Amino acid sequence: MHKLPKLTARHVDPRTYPPGVAYMDGQYLPIQEAKLSVLDYGFLHSDATYDVVHVWNGAFFRLGDHLERFFRGMSELHMSIPYDTAQVTEILHNCVALSGLENAYVEFICTRGTSPEFSRDPRDAENRFIAFAIPFGSVANKEQMERGLHLAVTDVLRIPPSSVDPTVKNYHWLDMVKGLYAAYERGADTAVLIDVNGNVSEGPGFNIFAVKDGVVSTPNLSVLLGITRQTIVDLCAEMGLPCHAQDIAVEDLKSADEVFVTSTAGGVMPVSKIDGQPIGSGEVGLLSERMMALYWQLHADDRYRSVVSYPGATDQ
Amino acid sequence: MHKLPKLTARHVDPRTYPPGVAYMDGQYLPIQEAKLSVLDYGFLHSDATYDVVHVWNGAFFRLGDHLERFFRGMSELHMSIPYDTAQVTEILHNCVALSGLENAYVEFICTRGTSPEFSRDPRDAENRFIAFAIPFGSVANKEQMERGLHLAVTDVLRIPPSSVDPTVKNYHWLDMVKGLYAAYERGADTAVLIDVNGNVSEGPGFNIFAVKDGVVSTPNLSVLLGITRQTIVDLCAEMGLPCHAQDIAVEDLKSADEVFVTSTAGGVMPVSKIDGQPIGSGEVGLLSERMMALYWQLHADDRYRSVVSYPGATDQ
Repeated sequence: MHKLPKLTARHVDPRTYPPGVAYMDGQYLPIQEAKLSVLDYGFLHSDATYDVVHVWNGAFFRLGDHLERFFRGMSELHMSIPYDTAQVTEILHNCVALSGLENAYVEFICTRGTSPEFSRDPRDAENRFIAFAIPFGSVANKEQMERGLHLAVTDVLRIPPSSVDPTVKNYHWLDMVKGLYAAYERGADTAVLIDVNGNVSEGPGFNIFAVKDGVVSTPNLSVLLGITRQTIVDLCAEMGLPCHAQDIAVEDLKSADEVFVTSTAGGVMPVSKIDGQPIGSGEVGLLSERMMALYWQLHADDRYRSVVSYPGATDQ
Repeated sequence: MHKLPKLTARHVDPRTYPPGVAYMDGQYLPIQEAKLSVLDYGFLHSDATYDVVHVWNGAFFRLGDHLERFFRGMSELHMSIPYDTAQVTEILHNCVALSGLENAYVEFICTRGTSPEFSRDPRDAENRFIAFAIPFGSVANKEQMERGLHLAVTDVLRIPPSSVDPTVKNYHWLDMVKGLYAAYERGADTAVLIDVNGNVSEGPGFNIFAVKDGVVSTPNLSVLLGITRQTIVDLCAEMGLPCHAQDIAVEDLKSADEVFVTSTAGGVMPVSKIDGQPIGSGEVGLLSERMMALYWQLHADDRYRSVVSYPGATDQ
């Protein structure tokens, strides 16, 4: 007869995780303790929405906008949590303060959750809220920020809005991952996906901007309405620069004077090559540099800033 | 100053889960201990593939076919695990035997996993294998099996193959969930999604079959190539019934003589109403009943059956 192995009472996780603090079920936990049941439909059906806000030099940036998007997303997905905006704000502040991170990547998530009977009806599930703060990360590393990202335009279709609403921030990324592997194979750093009309949509974790003859444009359909994207729109308005949310054909992206991408993870990031061809001079563009500088300057602006109270810090 | 809460060393999970046994990291665990880091990209990017096989009366059904599909899916997603087919087979057997379940729903998963630095490059992640056995579940409950399911054809587009390959079994279900809520609103039990041409695709966890004038048909594009679907194709061949994998227009589905759906979770399940209109007589169809009977009879067939050795059982 086949000899059966023994059951282990508690899971021992051999992996290493980044530093950080999470919140689940009323508990603040070291990040390596923040774990989701494999039966949670946020995992098994990717039935979840989330948001990511960053903390820079000890202050959240545009936290209110991220919270608004998150609560709207939950409502669209028929989900609810036992916390209001003020309570989620407090939880996020606490995660960051307990982590001690001055520059942090702060994610907050609502999953469909679980039901004791593993019911297939999403209405039977108890939704689950999770938040965590880990060190700030970026789509582009230091070298890529300096030389500009190299993009590959792939023929991968970004999951269309008639399937999944892109304005409800979600974890449906297999199209992005397919794009990434195609980009790596072509020697690029990351990928651009296309929309149902063959126009530019977005890439893994970022929105795309093109600059041509002093006019700034960014796709409007089949994309997440990013908060960093909105910050660029706001900056253009302040600068008196024309900025249009509109279709961008792939050839127009490639023949732009400048291209940059935006993400909470990294801010404004320059692009110097697409499909192996230089954009403009092939160097980081002047307007891109200006936008990067203005974006980080805005972090000192009280309109957008919520200061974190770290333990032991004096009031600010 | 803001008073900070304390960190808890270990997460205490207040939720109740179904009975079952899981395998992770070389450990067999009670299902409530089977948890995934919130940083796993299988969760954060739904970057994962999986399969579900069932155990009926103490034996796996068509396990080899499920394993083959799972290993092919991992390869398509550039994933690998340190187990071959024989080792995964042993793990699945052990999970079921340890659970004691004679009728089980057995899921095995490969996620992109994690990297210690939370790298955004999927090539940096260590892939993760998880398996679990829980009680057998069904898309249709007992009442629905007897009276036939009531379907609603929604205008939700099933995520198209040009975005995500449907033949690599995946967790991208927000389109399915949207369809479900639309179906509930219309008083139906579950939903049918459409493909890019407006034809019938699949529903949440099942393939669809129509029977008209003795000819059986099932959609071929934008669907998972289900093992239960294949079993129906095989049964039709044995019975000498014509069976075509082809486009089905929504109106052809509604005017079919019989409609049934198939899933590992429930087998063959009859449909008696679509969008409030009866299918055929509005009763469970004769061929549907025949297929249900033949499907379950096939579970005694040694071609498809792998017997589980439960603890304390004598050799079979």
